[in-house]
Amino acid sequence: MKRLLRRREVSWEDPMVGAALALDLSGLDYLRAIADGRIAPPPVAVLLGMGIVDVQPGRVTFSLEIGEHLYNPIGSVHGGIFCTLLDSAMGCAVHSTLGPGQAYTTLELKVNLVKALTLNTPSVVATGQVISAGRRVVTASGQISGPDGTLYAHATTTCLAVEPRPDGRNGHGRAQPG
Amino acid sequence: MKRLLRRREVSWEDPMVGAALALDLSGLDYLRAIADGRIAPPPVAVLLGMGIVDVQPGRVTFSLEIGEHLYNPIGSVHGGIFCTLLDSAMGCAVHSTLGPGQAYTTLELKVNLVKALTLNTPSVVATGQVISAGRRVVTASGQISGPDGTLYAHATTTCLAVEPRPDGRNGHGRAQPG
Amino acid sequence: MKRLLRRREVSWEDPMVGAALALDLSGLDYLRAIADGRIAPPPVAVLLGMGIVDVQPGRVTFSLEIGEHLYNPIGSVHGGIFCTLLDSAMGCAVHSTLGPGQAYTTLELKVNLVKALTLNTPSVVATGQVISAGRRVVTASGQISGPDGTLYAHATTTCLAVEPRPDGRNGHGRAQPG
Amino acid sequence: MKRLLRRREVSWEDPMVGAALALDLSGLDYLRAIADGRIAPPPVAVLLGMGIVDVQPGRVTFSLEIGEHLYNPIGSVHGGIFCTLLDSAMGCAVHSTLGPGQAYTTLELKVNLVKALTLNTPSVVATGQVISAGRRVVTASGQISGPDGTLYAHATTTCLAVEPRPDGRNGHGRAQPG
Repeated sequence: MKRLLRRREVSWEDPMVGAALALDLSGLDYLRAIADGRIAPPPVAVLLGMGIVDVQPGRVTFSLEIGEHLYNPIGSVHGGIFCTLLDSAMGCAVHSTLGPGQAYTTLELKVNLVKALTLNTPSVVATGQVISAGRRVVTASGQISGPDGTLYAHATTTCLAVEPRPDGRNGHGRAQPG
Repeated sequence: MKRLLRRREVSWEDPMVGAALALDLSGLDYLRAIADGRIAPPPVAVLLGMGIVDVQPGRVTFSLEIGEHLYNPIGSVHGGIFCTLLDSAMGCAVHSTLGPGQAYTTLELKVNLVKALTLNTPSVVATGQVISAGRRVVTASGQISGPDGTLYAHATTTCLAVEPRPDGRNGHGRAQPG
Repeated sequence: MKRLLRRREVSWEDPMVGAALALDLSGLDYLRAIADGRIAPPPVAVLLGMGIVDVQPGRVTFSLEIGEHLYNPIGSVHGGIFCTLLDSAMGCAVHSTLGPGQAYTTLELKVNLVKALTLNTPSVVATGQVISAGRRVVTASGQISGPDGTLYAHATTTCLAVEPRPDGRNGHGRAQPG
Repeated sequence: MKRLLRRREVSWEDPMVGAALALDLSGLDYLRAIADGRIAPPPVAVLLGMGIVDVQPGRVTFSLEIGEHLYNPIGSVHGGIFCTLLDSAMGCAVHSTLGPGQAYTTLELKVNLVKALTLNTPSVVATGQVISAGRRVVTASGQISGPDGTLYAHATTTCLAVEPRPDGRNGHGRAQPG
């Protein structure tokens, strides 16, 4: 059997450059700077083909272009890609509510996969929105839908706000605004 | 500011070739064929840098090489990559218990992210194992750990076994053994 | 220290009587018969103090009267009671979409507890609504809120529709419409 | 149709008495005092018929006597009761690791219901164990099993440690060690 090879080549900028800029911006300003191209998107977004398309306070939308590079062995987009897109949208929705120097960490997410996604659908969008915003704990939900409104997955997440440090560095080891 | 570009180029084979081979193999044989290189890995595994390292009945282990291509904007591996690795390991653990022509679909997964992962850790492994195997519904759990045993994430999933079709095709729109 | 005893006495009817009636009714008619008092509420509803207050296709609301009998050791309503109320509301939302003789089983639920509930709040309502209804798999979400709209918890669930049996008995070992 | 009434009467002590005692005890000592009967069990435990049977550091086991009072309309134990038992076992496992004056709050739990439970099984036990214990965030898992080892449900939870207050009161509105 002839083995046809398919390729994908991506390039990205040093993610620590944007991370440093984040420290002085509110979450809303930071995310809008990424959406507008003023701050480079993170490597994983370039790798997968996803990006921020809308940022509102407490509500962020990502798009994902569907390509074979996202496929599992059965010929559809891997469920983990749904999770990555939803984690991004929900995490950024939480991030959009934070002030300069504040950060958050995602404690957990739960994703329901409701429909397979293939190349027949050129792109999908994932929207995340904050459900409950406490002083420390913020929860959010998210949905992935196609151009015709078809629902592909839905999710919820629990995030923990991290106090800003006096030195301007946040102390978290993990934060995932994108 | 000088913008240094980093690149990643990947190539993969037509995923439908392996998908066709899967129909005549038990889950265990199919997964071992991927682990041994006799069936090409799926595109998403190549894209991310993950692969099957061990297949036992009801228990499958994946490895992931950590690279900057997996990074979120804050300089650590995106939480969605944890989900993708765990979804793969848990889904394959379920798949490893199925006979030829049988398939499954992942209904949901829940992932706890417990520790950030950076380039300081060269690689991690994720192991998935079946918890409860009913006639139709199978649940599994999974963990991601580093070379020194550090736990990075843990998860559970609910899968639904899909009946084989008379024509040898399974009817599911989504199945994610990898 | 003087130990004041508090009491609760409840009584209920044989739950199998209502279960038998369920076989000939659509989910909507069955749930409305419970809401209207034509079919006795299940024991657990009497025990806890919860009941159906509204039934629409794909959307069911329960109320719960807050009492000290629901308290954990710290002096607030036990988180598991939130789960029970949400499981009821979400499960019945799924049940409300089923035809006569059809049943469902709850595969999993995930509940976020966002605010403590005490006797200061006399009662809460939980509404469950179907998110995605496939041929076999139905997902739903739910929320618990107080009289002033305060959110106490939110949840999602995955249910599996069970085919009716030729003999009129459904084959499930577990189904939880209430 | 003749309507036979069944009854359950329970009584409990003021839960705030035990809550006050908790402030001076480590989690381990507090839970063992409940297990030994030196501190009264919380109302919800009496109401449902559950109790602590074993307390180890990071691992707590509850038992539940199965009775018709726990039934849903279909004639089996309501799924929410599984959640309550698992929330108790997992939350106490977390609590068992805390020092005097420290408290925790349960942020979320996810429960997989794998098998129906009826009066044919006289009692079940639920064991919760800590998976990951960070400075602030602790995760745990839990399982419900019958006398013959049959698995009925499994779960995971995310808890947040709450800093003790200078005045000896913890500031959380919700904590669920039981």
